[in-house]
Amino acid sequence: MDKHNLLIVHGGGPTAVLNSSLYGVITEAKSSDRIDKIYASIGGSEGILRESFKDLSVLTESDLGKLLHTPGTAIGSSRYALTEEDYCHMADIFLKYNIKYVLFNGGNGTMDTCGKVQEACKDREIYVVGIPKTVDNDIASIDHAPGYASAARFIATATAEIGADVRALPIHVCIIEAMGRNAGWITAASALARKDGKGAPHLIYLPERAFDEEAFLEDVERLYQELGGVVVVVSEGLKDSVGNPIVPPIFQQGRSVYYGDVSTHLAGLVIRRLGIKARSEKPGLSGRASMANQSGLDREEAILVGREAVKAALAGQAAVMVGIRRAGGEEYRIETPLIPIEKVMLEEKKLPEKFINPRGNDVTEEFIRGCRPLLREPLPDFIHFN
Amino acid sequence: MDKHNLLIVHGGGPTAVLNSSLYGVITEAKSSDRIDKIYASIGGSEGILRESFKDLSVLTESDLGKLLHTPGTAIGSSRYALTEEDYCHMADIFLKYNIKYVLFNGGNGTMDTCGKVQEACKDREIYVVGIPKTVDNDIASIDHAPGYASAARFIATATAEIGADVRALPIHVCIIEAMGRNAGWITAASALARKDGKGAPHLIYLPERAFDEEAFLEDVERLYQELGGVVVVVSEGLKDSVGNPIVPPIFQQGRSVYYGDVSTHLAGLVIRRLGIKARSEKPGLSGRASMANQSGLDREEAILVGREAVKAALAGQAAVMVGIRRAGGEEYRIETPLIPIEKVMLEEKKLPEKFINPRGNDVTEEFIRGCRPLLREPLPDFIHFN
Repeated sequence: MDKHNLLIVHGGGPTAVLNSSLYGVITEAKSSDRIDKIYASIGGSEGILRESFKDLSVLTESDLGKLLHTPGTAIGSSRYALTEEDYCHMADIFLKYNIKYVLFNGGNGTMDTCGKVQEACKDREIYVVGIPKTVDNDIASIDHAPGYASAARFIATATAEIGADVRALPIHVCIIEAMGRNAGWITAASALARKDGKGAPHLIYLPERAFDEEAFLEDVERLYQELGGVVVVVSEGLKDSVGNPIVPPIFQQGRSVYYGDVSTHLAGLVIRRLGIKARSEKPGLSGRASMANQSGLDREEAILVGREAVKAALAGQAAVMVGIRRAGGEEYRIETPLIPIEKVMLEEKKLPEKFINPRGNDVTEEFIRGCRPLLREPLPDFIHFN
Repeated sequence: MDKHNLLIVHGGGPTAVLNSSLYGVITEAKSSDRIDKIYASIGGSEGILRESFKDLSVLTESDLGKLLHTPGTAIGSSRYALTEEDYCHMADIFLKYNIKYVLFNGGNGTMDTCGKVQEACKDREIYVVGIPKTVDNDIASIDHAPGYASAARFIATATAEIGADVRALPIHVCIIEAMGRNAGWITAASALARKDGKGAPHLIYLPERAFDEEAFLEDVERLYQELGGVVVVVSEGLKDSVGNPIVPPIFQQGRSVYYGDVSTHLAGLVIRRLGIKARSEKPGLSGRASMANQSGLDREEAILVGREAVKAALAGQAAVMVGIRRAGGEEYRIETPLIPIEKVMLEEKKLPEKFINPRGNDVTEEFIRGCRPLLREPLPDFIHFN
């Protein structure tokens, strides 16, 4: 039988389980007698153009195991904007290296790349398959993306812990900034920190709703009078009523933008306007890099979609992404249907209205019910006498 | 035999193991036939004045166990500034409740309270003993305080994880803000993130050295040219050459002060002056509340000093704090000498010069050697091919 090589490429920002999908890809590919070398593109799409490939089929079991607990991406990534010419060039490179199976692991932008690479390879026997990944959970057509459950677990745990700290010495308003610029899925998951529906977070503000400064200050003041310590979770991407970010971008260079810190801005606002001590908490990149908060379920699902992508490519599937769909029934179970890549390309899945309360300062019970299974292992149970 | 009651009081901000010391106090006191009720003052020193006591001798084993993994303080705390009159009032309250043993768990400010309470009780048979605690590690006369090892473990882990994230997609300068306003112990511990002395953090700036903006920008630019991604860890309390905080206080009310975010300020500076994308990371309260980063050694030592404080009070010791001293020898071992409270009252232990490199942008090998045993369990071992 003719053997061919496989290429795995990472695109965009990492998640806590991106390397777990890589683990899934490598272990599945190693078990196939139709795959020879398992190339990793070092440094994302740019790595393909540089022909910077590393054969990972030679990895030991022990090194493979480390992938499951390594944050970031062990093979690098990139945010390089590819040109038409680049796509054609890639097709030639695949030929040169006897690469028949190409897997791209990434978010919306990467799925767009996936479609364009497949298009550039349409006259050749090359199978391009997408593996989903994003902490933001904004990939369309799937229930949730690998990476989200760990980010959700992180924010829920951090909020519960900061809540315990603030309860111990209730002297300030804490503004925690969560990842997710356009979609509020991570911010919303902070609600899972509550025990029997009580405690931190006391307020949640999502990017899907226009942020009303006055309503925010009213909410904070009322809760501060009542509790002394208040924990607020906000999305890094809060926008005003005309859709402008409440903190303007402070760095902009092509697609690379960096906004000021919403948490710092809002803590300052509470201090100036209400005269109440307030502080900002911005876990930032820890929200996707914390290994202690990696969700076991997320890791398993990330491995699974990696494996399924290899199987799909071997089965001659092309221009598809491995999806995650919840199977019906009481118990949480998933299926991994293949989704035509054009259905996911560049479409952004936001938090639907039904998951946000009328005042726009909390999530609904329906959101919590749907999100809870993703955390699976319960959060630690704290004890208090005060 | 006459039985008396014991009172435990928490002061100041929490640590990851403050409740572990409480566990030590309760379990030791339960084992003594000379102690009847184990009162906790709910809400720190203010709780004493309000006579807000809760008897914890009735706790079940299961509830006691939860204390070991609960952040904050399960009995509350306070930062109330006590008056002369308050101290006299306290002495009467102790009499009223048959309290003979009084334990204060806290940092420098609380040890000062300890001394003054003992003074107010000098004509009565009351034994006041201090238990040390601080994430900042700034208590004089001891090797390190319970709470520090967990805060050190947290910053080292977060820095290693953020380092892996930045290495995966090296497009920015990350400024991580560490706790410790006047003492750089926590900031310094980020150096433990390095593997074989390499990788993040690439730069460390401590509050003991005047912060030189120009030297900082030079360092960042040079490393950015070389690496693409740069991870910098800074103390929240960086000061300029005349001792003023580089970010002015934005809230001030009596002893309660809140400064702006140094990480936000420095990220903005890098963007404006160097035109390089930079972002801030401020784990904030997670640095002392993260249970996943609680150090096992720290937990054990926190339990130990709690137990020793009960033993000291029962032995008739007064106006002493339980210390931690490293015993000599190759292996890490500690002793817990009793230290006269006046030796620790309000004195702040800063990072000595020998632990800071000449340029003031890193720690020395000597610091790393001394700090490493406190983390005990090794940090996770990440794998990279890029």
